[in-house]
Amino acid sequence: MSDSGLGPPSRRLRAGIVGGGRGAFIGTVHRIAAELDGQAQVVAGAMSSDARIARESAADWLLERAYTSYEDMAAAEAADGHGIDFVIIATPNDLHLPVARAFLAKGIHVICDKPLALTVDEGEELVRRVEEGRALFALTHSYTGYPAVRQARDMVRGGQLGEIRKAIVEYTQDWLMEPLENRGNKQAAWRTDPARAGIGGCVGDIGTHALNLLEFVTERQVAALCADLSSFVAGRRLDDDANILLRLQGGAKGTLICSQIACGEENRLSLRLYGSEAGLEWHQEEPNTLWHKHAGRPWARLRTGQSYMGAAAKAATRTPAGHPEGYLEAFANLYRSFMQDVRRVGLGQPPLRDYPGVHDGLRGLRFVAQAVMSSRAGSVWLGL
Amino acid sequence: MSDSGLGPPSRRLRAGIVGGGRGAFIGTVHRIAAELDGQAQVVAGAMSSDARIARESAADWLLERAYTSYEDMAAAEAADGHGIDFVIIATPNDLHLPVARAFLAKGIHVICDKPLALTVDEGEELVRRVEEGRALFALTHSYTGYPAVRQARDMVRGGQLGEIRKAIVEYTQDWLMEPLENRGNKQAAWRTDPARAGIGGCVGDIGTHALNLLEFVTERQVAALCADLSSFVAGRRLDDDANILLRLQGGAKGTLICSQIACGEENRLSLRLYGSEAGLEWHQEEPNTLWHKHAGRPWARLRTGQSYMGAAAKAATRTPAGHPEGYLEAFANLYRSFMQDVRRVGLGQPPLRDYPGVHDGLRGLRFVAQAVMSSRAGSVWLGL
Amino acid sequence: MSDSGLGPPSRRLRAGIVGGGRGAFIGTVHRIAAELDGQAQVVAGAMSSDARIARESAADWLLERAYTSYEDMAAAEAADGHGIDFVIIATPNDLHLPVARAFLAKGIHVICDKPLALTVDEGEELVRRVEEGRALFALTHSYTGYPAVRQARDMVRGGQLGEIRKAIVEYTQDWLMEPLENRGNKQAAWRTDPARAGIGGCVGDIGTHALNLLEFVTERQVAALCADLSSFVAGRRLDDDANILLRLQGGAKGTLICSQIACGEENRLSLRLYGSEAGLEWHQEEPNTLWHKHAGRPWARLRTGQSYMGAAAKAATRTPAGHPEGYLEAFANLYRSFMQDVRRVGLGQPPLRDYPGVHDGLRGLRFVAQAVMSSRAGSVWLGL
Amino acid sequence: MSDSGLGPPSRRLRAGIVGGGRGAFIGTVHRIAAELDGQAQVVAGAMSSDARIARESAADWLLERAYTSYEDMAAAEAADGHGIDFVIIATPNDLHLPVARAFLAKGIHVICDKPLALTVDEGEELVRRVEEGRALFALTHSYTGYPAVRQARDMVRGGQLGEIRKAIVEYTQDWLMEPLENRGNKQAAWRTDPARAGIGGCVGDIGTHALNLLEFVTERQVAALCADLSSFVAGRRLDDDANILLRLQGGAKGTLICSQIACGEENRLSLRLYGSEAGLEWHQEEPNTLWHKHAGRPWARLRTGQSYMGAAAKAATRTPAGHPEGYLEAFANLYRSFMQDVRRVGLGQPPLRDYPGVHDGLRGLRFVAQAVMSSRAGSVWLGL
Repeated sequence: MSDSGLGPPSRRLRAGIVGGGRGAFIGTVHRIAAELDGQAQVVAGAMSSDARIARESAADWLLERAYTSYEDMAAAEAADGHGIDFVIIATPNDLHLPVARAFLAKGIHVICDKPLALTVDEGEELVRRVEEGRALFALTHSYTGYPAVRQARDMVRGGQLGEIRKAIVEYTQDWLMEPLENRGNKQAAWRTDPARAGIGGCVGDIGTHALNLLEFVTERQVAALCADLSSFVAGRRLDDDANILLRLQGGAKGTLICSQIACGEENRLSLRLYGSEAGLEWHQEEPNTLWHKHAGRPWARLRTGQSYMGAAAKAATRTPAGHPEGYLEAFANLYRSFMQDVRRVGLGQPPLRDYPGVHDGLRGLRFVAQAVMSSRAGSVWLGL
Repeated sequence: MSDSGLGPPSRRLRAGIVGGGRGAFIGTVHRIAAELDGQAQVVAGAMSSDARIARESAADWLLERAYTSYEDMAAAEAADGHGIDFVIIATPNDLHLPVARAFLAKGIHVICDKPLALTVDEGEELVRRVEEGRALFALTHSYTGYPAVRQARDMVRGGQLGEIRKAIVEYTQDWLMEPLENRGNKQAAWRTDPARAGIGGCVGDIGTHALNLLEFVTERQVAALCADLSSFVAGRRLDDDANILLRLQGGAKGTLICSQIACGEENRLSLRLYGSEAGLEWHQEEPNTLWHKHAGRPWARLRTGQSYMGAAAKAATRTPAGHPEGYLEAFANLYRSFMQDVRRVGLGQPPLRDYPGVHDGLRGLRFVAQAVMSSRAGSVWLGL
Repeated sequence: MSDSGLGPPSRRLRAGIVGGGRGAFIGTVHRIAAELDGQAQVVAGAMSSDARIARESAADWLLERAYTSYEDMAAAEAADGHGIDFVIIATPNDLHLPVARAFLAKGIHVICDKPLALTVDEGEELVRRVEEGRALFALTHSYTGYPAVRQARDMVRGGQLGEIRKAIVEYTQDWLMEPLENRGNKQAAWRTDPARAGIGGCVGDIGTHALNLLEFVTERQVAALCADLSSFVAGRRLDDDANILLRLQGGAKGTLICSQIACGEENRLSLRLYGSEAGLEWHQEEPNTLWHKHAGRPWARLRTGQSYMGAAAKAATRTPAGHPEGYLEAFANLYRSFMQDVRRVGLGQPPLRDYPGVHDGLRGLRFVAQAVMSSRAGSVWLGL
Repeated sequence: MSDSGLGPPSRRLRAGIVGGGRGAFIGTVHRIAAELDGQAQVVAGAMSSDARIARESAADWLLERAYTSYEDMAAAEAADGHGIDFVIIATPNDLHLPVARAFLAKGIHVICDKPLALTVDEGEELVRRVEEGRALFALTHSYTGYPAVRQARDMVRGGQLGEIRKAIVEYTQDWLMEPLENRGNKQAAWRTDPARAGIGGCVGDIGTHALNLLEFVTERQVAALCADLSSFVAGRRLDDDANILLRLQGGAKGTLICSQIACGEENRLSLRLYGSEAGLEWHQEEPNTLWHKHAGRPWARLRTGQSYMGAAAKAATRTPAGHPEGYLEAFANLYRSFMQDVRRVGLGQPPLRDYPGVHDGLRGLRFVAQAVMSSRAGSVWLGL
């Protein structure tokens, strides 16, 4: 926190969590990410709507205060002078809006899993509530937390690629290649259920990460898309695969591929950019390496932790070069920025907002809506 | 040739070449590929329309007979009882049809660089001439000559992937990222000139290879495409980049990306397939490895030269495992199959046609035509 | 902690730290590792002998109790009924023994950075003190905490390699390729100073990790070594490079290479084993992959987080496949096992000791001593 | 041949071969390598001491003249004004000297497989005969023919590594991990038979390649070695595994590992150098890439065929970047240089000798002798 200019903090922040109970790996990810830098502790939670799971999850986490309802939690924590400083929302998508509403109404800062909400309408409501309130809102598009991704953005921003011409972004997995939703898998069940996931399946669950990564690194918006969505698994109600043509502001073109039926792929998120001066390439599964392909020169293999990396990458790195960092550390980088803002706001300073927020979330929801609509219309170009 | 059932051949075949003179690397590639197995020797050529280059190229190659006109060459070689057994066409695209016409008319077998011709109409003429004549015709879609590619086809054919759901094929380069056609580069000049290259730039020069690779391995045709072609280099008359959505017969979907402005890429041709049982992945720049991704198991790294490879891969491999083979050996595998047919036909046996031919070439020309038309119409789906 | 059979813990453990103040990256590594699973919090510390650094470091970490002397800390924490449950030793090597002595004498559990101490004599004293006392002792040979390393051990133990014939272990870096010790770098200064580091330089600092990794995975001891140590940087008093021949119990042979002058290497720790049935290969810089090379089959690429991994690897994995874990998570796995024992002992249960301890540390010290002696004697075989 | 300054050659050279008949893959490798550039044709051979194999092999190759005895062949070819220009020796090691003697005595140039001969004494005789005669002699240490290896040598020579400190060279395979010599494998039988292979097994068969690669790239000789050789396969009379410490002239140290029982390895030859300014790394199984690790900078990934490569690499490259070359092309590069000298000598010009010769071969034999002696003496340092 030495760069905050605020003097040293005097205590760990107190965090609460809604959702993320036993069986939902993302809950633990949020806890670890929030606490990694020793600047916060999760002390309260409404971790499941199932009272037994909520109780057991709270015990696992050694929580000081366990709730069975997020409304109760919001009320109680706001009333207590020693209540939580911020709340983590790690529920299925359909609860993002109601939970956020409850805590924002109490002026409690919110950090929420993506996507922002179920629909564009919901997203717009959330934008409005955040803009009209005084509480902070962060969205955990966690892949932008990797040091190499931040280095990539700096290099694009610094003009090292020249004019960007081509972008290839991909996010493929295989975990839904079988109809797990019919076999008792809770994670699969809600993610393939339009009522809880929204109108996008794969395109919402991971396509939004790919979009966010692309727009984060290039600082250019996708201007239009032309999509072909599929549901390969029989009976599945939402897409599990998408091939999408892209046009970016500024003239670049590209593709966005996402799939949850790509047999053998774990979490293959990658980004390639090709400019008039250089190209970049990054793979999430080997996240500490960034390839810089300057025209006419050997590819340069940039590595996090090295002295030649830029300030943004260095600020997001905790270990020396060669001591690999991973997903949890990237996730924690979003928390670090968010919590810095929580402290700043507490001290009356303006927030820096160096993390994804409601507007990024709204773009994700629009992306899902337009991708679905483009595909239904037979792959037509739609603006975004 | 032990598998030909024809008894041992008694002499090296005699080959001629049209085009491929000094400065055109592909000429040397054809010579090496034709001669690699000691079954042929290039003895005659009309290697350039420039008499000096033709003479010097012939001297470089120690040719026995040099011509300055392919018509003269066809006439002379056909008349001579010891003339060539087959001709190699390594000219710019606009000469493929006239040169092929001249030699086919004399009954001389033809092996021709891709694409087949300038237009679909030309391609159809060539199909007709080959079908009506008695001479053989091979098209050097050389990437299908790699042992690992043949292994991939065998695995698909054997059902190891289950139902194919998704295909991702890519062919990216950067050699045209600058306007070399205005800087005296002859290779760039004809490839970006519609009169000599046809209506496709990148999509014809390398996109056709990507299509052929995909259709070769899957033994499924692309049923429809939806394309977005671009010319990023100012003043360029043909496309230098393409992003294309695909639908394959049998229900698979996918993307085909090709580009000649992808800064930093050399010759990045790759194929990925995802089925209901397994996935496959192959990269031309590391061609001796094939990834087999069976659902629920570790990826298996298949390597050419190993005893577990199938018969097709083994037949296409010349060195033990770990002694890398490359582009020239793959190219030579097409020649090996073609020359085996030349010998068979000479002995009155039916040809085996285990190499790309006029029909593959015609598909490539239709692909170019439909990709260009789809893109001009604003990315609409067109059948193929 | 669900596998402890002890019922749920009721509070986070309280940890203290000696050393690891500002400028020593390993301090933060210990804190993160200790706290990662939400089972402990570092609350007290004597983080530097420099009072200002000690004070500022304590403030950075939001410590409840800051000390300037480890003796004071041991006394105070032992006296307080709410004192620390265990102490972390993250000082230069020469303080390992005195600090450990102080806390062990008070019955406070110790987790200590490697190497165990300065000399074999010191190491033997520490073994004696631990064996005679009731406090636990763990040594942070952190690389054995990686899930893939534990998988490797299970595979060896299960006989999947057959008889082990050959072992190649390497740990190379470049951070000491210049005389940083003369340029104000504190980390370099003590590591190249015999008074504070012991008689081994590189061989002690990282060679011991390589040895420990090899012995951990194979569960075979190195029986003898034949070493050639060097100091390439002018004026350096300790070795900065070593090439060592090995013989293992059971008949395997091998090499251990370590270097801190290997220009371009970050933290290249790797292990390869070759048996009569299969080989294994692991690289710390890409730690989530383990190569299994069964004779006559394709290499299998095992990945952490996958369902086919064994129980030991799964127990050490926090994220789904494809969400990379790294150095901090591996380090935290040692803490997890150690803290489980702290809780068990607190409940009167016998400890499980599933982490490196004093005996591993003593082997490391003997390895350093024998390597130095072998090299001085002109590379002779010495037992270990 | 345009760089020879000799004017264009007027015919293909005529080559003969001794050994290399059916079942010996290395025979075909020599033929392809000799003929790859269209500058030679193998026309005569004594391909086996078994008359049937000799006859069939000659027919496979379409040889003009087949012999059953190399003595007859030497006599006949020397007598004939149109006889061979050079002979290829591809026999087991024990015949290298007698065959070379026979052809050298007739003034016929020789290109011979490695190792040079059976013993150091034999090697010295061969050196004497070559020095006293007028015929050329080349030894096919083929791995030095790779463009990336030549680039590496140029970079070392140009001082880009600074002072070389550390060298790690390895050559591991697994093809002898079972006792194939007892199962009818002819290649295994002679390679494990001291009477035909010499006193070195693995150390002679592939260790000599590793040594040659190291000395070629560094242009420094290994000054001393300390070896530990093993025979892991029961009943094997020669070593099948070796771990060797090295000291190079100029002060560098290192290791040389070779093995033919390294389960899962195909032909893993690699070289790493670490200097005071930069490091280099090359792997034979991915031969078109060379890693350049300059201190403090990202690793640079040099690729053959690129414009930034040096003259030596370019002269050894036949295809554009991204069109992989392999083992056969590297082998052909030795032939190219050797045949250029054959032409030069034919024209009365002095040879350039830009390929390994008898002196390299003698070093290899001494290396084998010293490695065996060092190991027998319990791993003592011996000069080389």
